[in-house]
Amino acid sequence: MPYVNIKITREGATAEQKARLIQGATQLLVDVLGKNPATTTVVIDEVDTDNWGIGGEAVSQRRKKGL
Amino acid sequence: MPYVNIKITREGATAEQKARLIQGATQLLVDVLGKNPATTTVVIDEVDTDNWGIGGEAVSQRRKKGL
Amino acid sequence: MPYVNIKITREGATAEQKARLIQGATQLLVDVLGKNPATTTVVIDEVDTDNWGIGGEAVSQRRKKGL
Amino acid sequence: MPYVNIKITREGATAEQKARLIQGATQLLVDVLGKNPATTTVVIDEVDTDNWGIGGEAVSQRRKKGL
Amino acid sequence: MPYVNIKITREGATAEQKARLIQGATQLLVDVLGKNPATTTVVIDEVDTDNWGIGGEAVSQRRKKGL
Amino acid sequence: MPYVNIKITREGATAEQKARLIQGATQLLVDVLGKNPATTTVVIDEVDTDNWGIGGEAVSQRRKKGL
Repeated sequence: MPYVNIKITREGATAEQKARLIQGATQLLVDVLGKNPATTTVVIDEVDTDNWGIGGEAVSQRRKKGL
Repeated sequence: MPYVNIKITREGATAEQKARLIQGATQLLVDVLGKNPATTTVVIDEVDTDNWGIGGEAVSQRRKKGL
Repeated sequence: MPYVNIKITREGATAEQKARLIQGATQLLVDVLGKNPATTTVVIDEVDTDNWGIGGEAVSQRRKKGL
Repeated sequence: MPYVNIKITREGATAEQKARLIQGATQLLVDVLGKNPATTTVVIDEVDTDNWGIGGEAVSQRRKKGL
Repeated sequence: MPYVNIKITREGATAEQKARLIQGATQLLVDVLGKNPATTTVVIDEVDTDNWGIGGEAVSQRRKKGL
Repeated sequence: MPYVNIKITREGATAEQKARLIQGATQLLVDVLGKNPATTTVVIDEVDTDNWGIGGEAVSQRRKKGL
């Protein structure tokens, strides 16, 4: 029954990587809390780098500076 | 004043269906709690099937298996 | 498989009213999109009136003014 | 360490405007609560006008009516 | 920089279990996508069983039925 | 119409500080995007320090170490 939402910047995560995030997050809830994987939901949001800020600055700007 | 967020997989919901979700969710808050529809917000997120997991597996994989 | 999040101010919604929100939101997804109710999740967040703002003002302040 | 999520309709916000939202929201947390900007995250979601409802109606419909 | 939100029913998760969820979710992002753990945020929401619905029914009701 | 969600650790923010966050976030949307403050919603979530992780560790643990 748990619900997990993972937000990452949209920078080329592959379907295979996203499948591993889904599998890993689901297994984590099973291992730590004994939750039922069949009703565990994982939603991944990929966010444009113009729309994600850290340190008061968009990631798109940080990438241009090599950060 | 309520805020409702509906997350579904991106699998072809039409504008008309989304309008019905917005209308129905707003009416539900009016009927059950007497909320003011004028300030009730509904946001629908459509999520790629690679990015939605259930049972530890992406929906895109499940669809290939006929689930 | 849908996920619905309903945010309301914490102003005395009863367990019976919350049960109706859960039932109604689930049925809405069944009726409009043919979703499976067994895997439809509804989460209700009740938010303190100090922590909810509309029109630039906390609801707790608005309530004192009779709004 | 705060996390701020700003949801707006997708109606042409520019990268420069989004940068100002990121900067302003981060500064707000610094000014009011003394938070560390380096670990303050801001995520902006732009939502299609078919997917955003207010008053029981999609914004796309409201725009057609000049609202 | 990722942000992970884990929602579970409030049914007695301990501080130690929540620490394991935080550690595990952070490590997952490191392992799969090479993310920097220092800026990875995990937020756990514990939701009252009256406020979480599955199958159109509150978890509090399901628990009374032994589900 | 925008919706802003601010998540902070529960470490004693006062009603007055939360009112300033609500006012400031609303004004930011007015200033940058010309949004209508009357329908701008701000929701503040205060999260227990056991339930907020950064760097793979709960904030409650970090506070004990003086971080």
